[in-house]
Amino acid sequence: MSMLYEINEKALKLESEGKKIIRLNLGDPDLATPPEIVEAAFASMKAGKTKYASSYGELKLREKIAEVHGVKAENVVVTPGSKWAVFATMFLILKNGGNVIIPTPYWTAYDLIAKSFGAKTKLLRTEMEDGWKVDIDKLEALIDKETKMIIINNPNNPTSKAMDNETLDCIVELANKKGVTILSDEVYGAISFVKTKSILDYDAECKHILSNGFSKTFTMTGWRIGYLIANKMFVDKITKLNQITINNVPVFIQDAALKGLELSKQIASAIKAKYKQRADLASTKLSAAGFKFTKPDAPFYVFPKLDGLDSEKFTLNLLDRGVAVAPGTSFGDYREHFRISLTAPDGKIGDGLDKICEAVQ
Amino acid sequence: MSMLYEINEKALKLESEGKKIIRLNLGDPDLATPPEIVEAAFASMKAGKTKYASSYGELKLREKIAEVHGVKAENVVVTPGSKWAVFATMFLILKNGGNVIIPTPYWTAYDLIAKSFGAKTKLLRTEMEDGWKVDIDKLEALIDKETKMIIINNPNNPTSKAMDNETLDCIVELANKKGVTILSDEVYGAISFVKTKSILDYDAECKHILSNGFSKTFTMTGWRIGYLIANKMFVDKITKLNQITINNVPVFIQDAALKGLELSKQIASAIKAKYKQRADLASTKLSAAGFKFTKPDAPFYVFPKLDGLDSEKFTLNLLDRGVAVAPGTSFGDYREHFRISLTAPDGKIGDGLDKICEAVQ
Repeated sequence: MSMLYEINEKALKLESEGKKIIRLNLGDPDLATPPEIVEAAFASMKAGKTKYASSYGELKLREKIAEVHGVKAENVVVTPGSKWAVFATMFLILKNGGNVIIPTPYWTAYDLIAKSFGAKTKLLRTEMEDGWKVDIDKLEALIDKETKMIIINNPNNPTSKAMDNETLDCIVELANKKGVTILSDEVYGAISFVKTKSILDYDAECKHILSNGFSKTFTMTGWRIGYLIANKMFVDKITKLNQITINNVPVFIQDAALKGLELSKQIASAIKAKYKQRADLASTKLSAAGFKFTKPDAPFYVFPKLDGLDSEKFTLNLLDRGVAVAPGTSFGDYREHFRISLTAPDGKIGDGLDKICEAVQ
Repeated sequence: MSMLYEINEKALKLESEGKKIIRLNLGDPDLATPPEIVEAAFASMKAGKTKYASSYGELKLREKIAEVHGVKAENVVVTPGSKWAVFATMFLILKNGGNVIIPTPYWTAYDLIAKSFGAKTKLLRTEMEDGWKVDIDKLEALIDKETKMIIINNPNNPTSKAMDNETLDCIVELANKKGVTILSDEVYGAISFVKTKSILDYDAECKHILSNGFSKTFTMTGWRIGYLIANKMFVDKITKLNQITINNVPVFIQDAALKGLELSKQIASAIKAKYKQRADLASTKLSAAGFKFTKPDAPFYVFPKLDGLDSEKFTLNLLDRGVAVAPGTSFGDYREHFRISLTAPDGKIGDGLDKICEAVQ
């Protein structure tokens, strides 16, 4: 994490000194939030939707989210970003002790969140050479009496790999057998290039927990809105935590998100098409330059490997050449990998990829 | 707290059934957010300020807040509401154990926050008959080796009493002697009817902590924006917590808040004048009906007492008559008190007060 932030701070500093940096280091799309969403927010503000509101989220939005996922509105709670949904879930389940199993490579926030309240993390390594598959035997061996939770990120950041159905089947079966809660972070699910099962497909009673957000699907990163789907009792607990922390997501932002869901088909398919194009371009260029990687199943990332690479040095070196990426060590013990985020304007992405390829010739 | 929420839910339910309820139970002003602030948010959104942003907050806003309070920008961190500022501060200081001293009557969130991560609270009772003064000897007797924090809310919710300078002097002196951090929640400070000292007046190095928000001063309750002022090291810690929880306050909301600060004089003085008028009206009517209370030093509350009153029964009874208030038990052990929030439209406030007075004849 620190290196991830360090790179970003350095990139910003270089830019402030007048250097041009192609920023492929963060999952923040270059595209603008669709104008219909912006207009919906403004209309809502002007209509006075600027008051304290429910810590559950607005019923209209919860109903629409429930419809999308085939659950009931009582299973939905709106959060300021999916990150808050993840923090709140982990806090409630782990604050009194226990451990959480996290497959790697992972989104570092999971690990930092657990550590922020003293919960233990057990990392479960997956390898590119195995197609980033979770080994079920290794997972079972990691589960002990103190294990309260498994986090899966499907499709995954940084690999953009979607989990195959068989593996997910086995994880769910094992979790059910052992009485461990799964938190499934599916923020890239709606814009995945391939069909991938949701945790909700297993679980009409919402025994497990889904976190999701509007950031990626609707290019709303800075708006900070996401949600959690869980059983009613857990939704009530999250809401109580919301009441003493964030209180509510601004209603005009919820109205904007609702507009996004209403236009979901056109927005999501445009985003998918755009990022599929970018992923194909990246795959072609990186393959030609000798990098190994699994082909992205989803936006926004590629996580290439080069044997013997020291990705921290490589990343700093690359920054001097005007391209920011993230070292593999920001996602676990993956020194030979680095993460490219295909979230810069189209022209710049090609240039950035070319510079990355040149840097290893 | 539960009763506070219960009353609110019941009021909403009665309204949904077509009953007219005068809602004097929450500190959510009836006034609209000033249109200049709404327009500033829209302009910012349209300019693309919809991306991930700094977990410290935008530099421009931090600089402006620093200017208002006479500190440096590095002492300021922007938060999604002052409630988050309070939670984050208490979490970081108390998560590994210790206790916090809270004078009562209090904003219940302080107590609930502490309990959410297992910290102990020590309540320090103050009485209307003493003008709600903190007794310094009692405070000193409460401080033990495990005491890490004292929370003061100045001016206070629910009493609207501003602390006299002498008492505040003594609290700060005692806290410094004992090495205890003060968190001073001053959300009603900028619109106080009387001049009241800030914790920052004692403390050029920001040893203690100030939390504040835009909700009350700028009628921005539902926008969720506040801030914390502390020493740089603590600001860095809060920012790290922000990175793994809320990430950032939407930049367009920060731009809206900045516009508020720029128009601060006119907005705050209009709000102050409006609420002073309401407080005077309430004082006149309540005195005539035999209630005892201290005259409000600030918006938005009056916390009257009637000897022998059971405020929970009274509150439920009053709701049947069409007026929602909050029982004193929501703010500590104050069964004979109840809280009136003067945040309904002018005409309704008069009617509401009349019904309250009739109910005890």
